[in-house]
Amino acid sequence: MGTRNCEQRTTDLKIDVQKKLATSWFLNLRDEICTEFEQLEKNIALPKPTDAAGRFVRETWKHKDYKDSEGGGGEISIMRGRVFEKVGVNISTVYGELSPDFCKQIPGADKNPHFWASGISVVAHMCSPLVPAVHMNTRFIVTQKSWFGGGMDMTTFYPDTEVEKAFHLPLKLCCERHGTDYHARFSKWCDEYFFLPHRNEPRGIGGIFYDYLDTCNWEKDFKFTQDVGQTFLDIFPKIVRMRMDVPWSAEQREHQLIRRGRYVEFNLLYDRGTKFGLRTKGNSDAILMSMPPEVKWP
Amino acid sequence: MGTRNCEQRTTDLKIDVQKKLATSWFLNLRDEICTEFEQLEKNIALPKPTDAAGRFVRETWKHKDYKDSEGGGGEISIMRGRVFEKVGVNISTVYGELSPDFCKQIPGADKNPHFWASGISVVAHMCSPLVPAVHMNTRFIVTQKSWFGGGMDMTTFYPDTEVEKAFHLPLKLCCERHGTDYHARFSKWCDEYFFLPHRNEPRGIGGIFYDYLDTCNWEKDFKFTQDVGQTFLDIFPKIVRMRMDVPWSAEQREHQLIRRGRYVEFNLLYDRGTKFGLRTKGNSDAILMSMPPEVKWP
Repeated sequence: MGTRNCEQRTTDLKIDVQKKLATSWFLNLRDEICTEFEQLEKNIALPKPTDAAGRFVRETWKHKDYKDSEGGGGEISIMRGRVFEKVGVNISTVYGELSPDFCKQIPGADKNPHFWASGISVVAHMCSPLVPAVHMNTRFIVTQKSWFGGGMDMTTFYPDTEVEKAFHLPLKLCCERHGTDYHARFSKWCDEYFFLPHRNEPRGIGGIFYDYLDTCNWEKDFKFTQDVGQTFLDIFPKIVRMRMDVPWSAEQREHQLIRRGRYVEFNLLYDRGTKFGLRTKGNSDAILMSMPPEVKWP
Repeated sequence: MGTRNCEQRTTDLKIDVQKKLATSWFLNLRDEICTEFEQLEKNIALPKPTDAAGRFVRETWKHKDYKDSEGGGGEISIMRGRVFEKVGVNISTVYGELSPDFCKQIPGADKNPHFWASGISVVAHMCSPLVPAVHMNTRFIVTQKSWFGGGMDMTTFYPDTEVEKAFHLPLKLCCERHGTDYHARFSKWCDEYFFLPHRNEPRGIGGIFYDYLDTCNWEKDFKFTQDVGQTFLDIFPKIVRMRMDVPWSAEQREHQLIRRGRYVEFNLLYDRGTKFGLRTKGNSDAILMSMPPEVKWP
């Protein structure tokens, strides 16, 4: 794992270029996603529960344990609207030293605690219980090794084979464009990762999850990660359009609020992104942006 | 720590008697708390938000990984009413073998994985944002050592010096009846324990928290634990009566729902009772009964 381990073919100069390319792509993707999501807010046929179309509000943050620009920071884009009850699109680039016990858990950090991490994270909780919640994240991480990670997964509140097909099929095609075994491996990983052992329940309907991706061909791995982002942009707005104009009942809404509790349980009990963020003293507002706007444990 | 370590003065027979006495006390306390809380439901002057007074519903559960009565189980008593939006009073007695990595973290389990744990746990989320949420728990745990643990803490949604005084003063007196340093130690422990590092915020207004209590005088330690339970029964209904008839605004209710998010974050990210329960494969409904009925992360 890690291009710097691939027979030292990569110099620090190359790593700097890779960091810039990855960071710049995450930023572009953020802009495209926000534009697309704002468009959905304008397109809904039956405006509810608020009249005005939502708009993204942007806020920058600096890593709180460092002075000035040291340690990095990020930008939270959040929108509360009539299609998206709450959606956060975060980009961040953070760097520093991992705590000694955390070093043991992160590849390439056992002898040198320095890390650099950049990524984009999207979590959308929708007004309608008939529109699935979605999560997408891609990241590039550099320690003494370097790798890509990410994926996307969806949570429907009612079985919906049409929506499931519209999600899984393009995702499978995306994977197959980059590696014959990618879809099998990454969809299995997703099912295993987004699982609540204490409930013996999956969090959602699956998707793909990958981590520590380093084939010793950085351009190839980056292209895959870019394709994952692009595929998300192709898939999710289509699915939203498929269901956003369908009326729902109070009972369905209640069911959605209860099922969102599982989402909270997963993110706080198990999610490694949440743990990584909180342990590296990331911005807690950005990290906990993933929390649903309203939840019930009746 | 652990009477069985106190110069071997306690035989296994004595431990069995102690287990029975503790279990029986937890059960009696449960009955008293439920009776008292149902009385509050009847006494409210301004019925809201539902008309009927709440009544406790009781459900027993068996430890899911064991056959028949092996492994133990518990009883969940839950009430949803017009004073108590959701209150759970759980008693449980569980036993079995701790997983190898968990053995290292539990006193007296490093050489022998067997454990036995009995206790009562109360979590009340109130309809009114002017009435504090409360948590009380006491437990008796036996490995190769044995000890009591427990405490109580309160979460107000607005500063309320009268309520705070009615909580902290009797709790201080209770502690002082059993040990001159108990209040100083256990209130400090509470402040340190119920703290959210990622928010740099305390969860509530404090109280007491104690664990690993074994003075080599079991009767004394048990009396303290009984007094903690009795003090809870004296304090909390009085505080509820002080505020339950005061009308509140929609804005105050919204504030309560948002603040409840901190409660969820604490319980799922940090609470050792939650972790212990989920890792020893306890009943997830009983463990997550502590979740507030409605929460917002706007």
